[in-house]
Amino acid sequence: MADFTKQLAERANTINMNAGPSPLPDAALLTAAASLLSYPETPGMGIAEISHRSPAFDNVVVKANDDLRKLLEIPSNYRILWMQGGGLTQFAATALNLLAWYRIKNQLKPEDEVDAWYAVTGSWSKKAAEEGARVGVNAKKVFDGKKYGGGKFKGIPPASEWEIPQLEENGRKPAFVYYCDNETVDGIEFGGVGSETAFPFDKFDPEVPVAADMSSNFLSRPVDVSKYGIIYAGAQKNLGPAGVTLVIIREDLIVDLDEAVKYGGARVPSMLSYKNMADTNSMYNTPPTFTIYVCSLVLRSLLASPPLPLSSPDARPLSPLSDFADQKSSLIYAELDDGSGFYVGTADKAVRSRMNPTFRLKGGEELEKKFVKAASDKGIKGVNGHRSVGGIRTSIYNAVTLEQVKTLVAFMREFREQNQ
Amino acid sequence: MADFTKQLAERANTINMNAGPSPLPDAALLTAAASLLSYPETPGMGIAEISHRSPAFDNVVVKANDDLRKLLEIPSNYRILWMQGGGLTQFAATALNLLAWYRIKNQLKPEDEVDAWYAVTGSWSKKAAEEGARVGVNAKKVFDGKKYGGGKFKGIPPASEWEIPQLEENGRKPAFVYYCDNETVDGIEFGGVGSETAFPFDKFDPEVPVAADMSSNFLSRPVDVSKYGIIYAGAQKNLGPAGVTLVIIREDLIVDLDEAVKYGGARVPSMLSYKNMADTNSMYNTPPTFTIYVCSLVLRSLLASPPLPLSSPDARPLSPLSDFADQKSSLIYAELDDGSGFYVGTADKAVRSRMNPTFRLKGGEELEKKFVKAASDKGIKGVNGHRSVGGIRTSIYNAVTLEQVKTLVAFMREFREQNQ
Repeated sequence: MADFTKQLAERANTINMNAGPSPLPDAALLTAAASLLSYPETPGMGIAEISHRSPAFDNVVVKANDDLRKLLEIPSNYRILWMQGGGLTQFAATALNLLAWYRIKNQLKPEDEVDAWYAVTGSWSKKAAEEGARVGVNAKKVFDGKKYGGGKFKGIPPASEWEIPQLEENGRKPAFVYYCDNETVDGIEFGGVGSETAFPFDKFDPEVPVAADMSSNFLSRPVDVSKYGIIYAGAQKNLGPAGVTLVIIREDLIVDLDEAVKYGGARVPSMLSYKNMADTNSMYNTPPTFTIYVCSLVLRSLLASPPLPLSSPDARPLSPLSDFADQKSSLIYAELDDGSGFYVGTADKAVRSRMNPTFRLKGGEELEKKFVKAASDKGIKGVNGHRSVGGIRTSIYNAVTLEQVKTLVAFMREFREQNQ
Repeated sequence: MADFTKQLAERANTINMNAGPSPLPDAALLTAAASLLSYPETPGMGIAEISHRSPAFDNVVVKANDDLRKLLEIPSNYRILWMQGGGLTQFAATALNLLAWYRIKNQLKPEDEVDAWYAVTGSWSKKAAEEGARVGVNAKKVFDGKKYGGGKFKGIPPASEWEIPQLEENGRKPAFVYYCDNETVDGIEFGGVGSETAFPFDKFDPEVPVAADMSSNFLSRPVDVSKYGIIYAGAQKNLGPAGVTLVIIREDLIVDLDEAVKYGGARVPSMLSYKNMADTNSMYNTPPTFTIYVCSLVLRSLLASPPLPLSSPDARPLSPLSDFADQKSSLIYAELDDGSGFYVGTADKAVRSRMNPTFRLKGGEELEKKFVKAASDKGIKGVNGHRSVGGIRTSIYNAVTLEQVKTLVAFMREFREQNQ
């Protein structure tokens, strides 16, 4: 193994709280660095320099899928797809593929319009609804989080207040329900630290598939995959480098988009077809091989050495990561709730994100700038809020350690004492 | 710099002739490996672990664009975009964006159909025409290379035989002309070693934009960019790892796809809009940051240390790479043409690819298998033909050295002598 003493020392002195792309485990990066030059299964050729159709790369994908299936306990009637284009591409792909499935299933006519419901909890689900509308769905909101929060995304209304008609005006069911499991910009998570607001599956007709964006809390807790039609996640938070998006989809939802055209479906670029990806094991064209390889290393490390021991012999594989996220985020939220009012959490307590605690400083924007600068001077990087909302965001994905969060909290306390 | 003695020794013993993903320069990989752990501008954070909106990553893109502009002598009225999804996504994106441009320009009605012309020289341009048709263009062929070759792609008809009506049946000009500059599967290149068949721009109305797929011969010779509407290239041949595609587009062709809807344009996923990418400097969402970074290192190395000296003080920046490709490919073609008939080139001499010389063994498929195995035993990897056509393909992109090609040719000679 090559010697990266200098780089590792720099890493040890740095707390990387970037919201995405985000820190990756040292061990995965060290292995990836060596494999860039020469991959053990193909000596003399780096992992980025071999054919995606070679046995060596095929092994990477097979193993990654296998590990992911174990970690997330994915049922056998779900397929795993590795796609390009990030969440924004999936905003369109989920809508286009589910519309096609729905049009074929209901043998619709071209003039028939199709509704879908979006739970708009924050910036990303809002964009998803806009993109769904762009590609041809009647995107209806079961609620608008911004209205609910009085102009800001900060909470999720209780499910009893959601507008969920059992049938649409046209007498049919909607094509799908869409939500975002964790809103990175706004620090809002279904089943967050408060845990009172898991997504209310029981409010919906079980025949209507649920599509969820789990980009930013993927692999941070056990998920009952069988409740979902589609789960997708951009890699660049808990999974790997930017440039690949995982899609987990129930087999019966995978349809031929070209067939849907006769039922009024859109003419969809073939790279957005889940069927094309499923039929070719994600090798419909050249996939981002190195990026997928790093994801495979991260998956392996989560299985081989979870951050906490299993709480009980029959605990689920992702339980340690859930406990880990709870522990870390609770430390930060305890500091926000210390009673001084110096730090002000932006999200309602019941839906506070375990991945992206967001807060403001009561002292105002100038003090926030000072906070970001002082944190950076201490080696704590990337804690500025998203450019669209400002404030502070402390992203604490899987590769951020408990020790690092304790250092952050100690810094927050010190900064408060000095600036109160 | 970390010590990769073992990996570098393995590389020195290996000749990587993979068709894509393909070999990258050692120096770029060494720098990339160290930067994965800690990037010099952001000590303690790797290049894949920082925000795409950070000054450090912005510098990467600015420098990469700058270097590319110098190398390809890109005029100031062209934009450089970094996109995801590979060539197949561009098959759709070129058609959808140029259709939108054309519909707006001609203020078309929804029922107006639009023609485009495809020069079908091989497997990739054939797929591009199919994808263009899928997303709504009347894809017409100015010729069908397969018919011309009697059932196989092996040549390009002389421009005098191309079917190029000056106006379409509807009285309008076509929206665009499309071609693939180098067909990797079939070993056919416009302006290849024979150089008699550069793309015949003068046969077309200069107002009709030309879109070209240069994925597999990008950065291998000077290009007069001003003759093109769009040039694109998947990175994974001469530019970098798989997972990013460069698009170079003339500014006036960049239009708002949503505006085109009122003139009958399709509802296009926003990630396929060149305008969205241009307006955000390719940061419309999180781009594949590490992949772009490696491309930037390759671009830098091509500028800083071209494989051959400039032939004259006023030679163009890519002339050394053109000479280099000519030298390497000529050695292989000379061996095919040695008169023994043992090796049989698959492409017409006038259009032989400088990047992917393809050939068959007169002795048949069993002997070809033996050839691939014997080559591999000598450390020459990846010379099997594309799975759709079989035979032998020796991909000799920029990172393959003259010395390595000489070793290949010596092996070919030896193998012939032993198996003739």
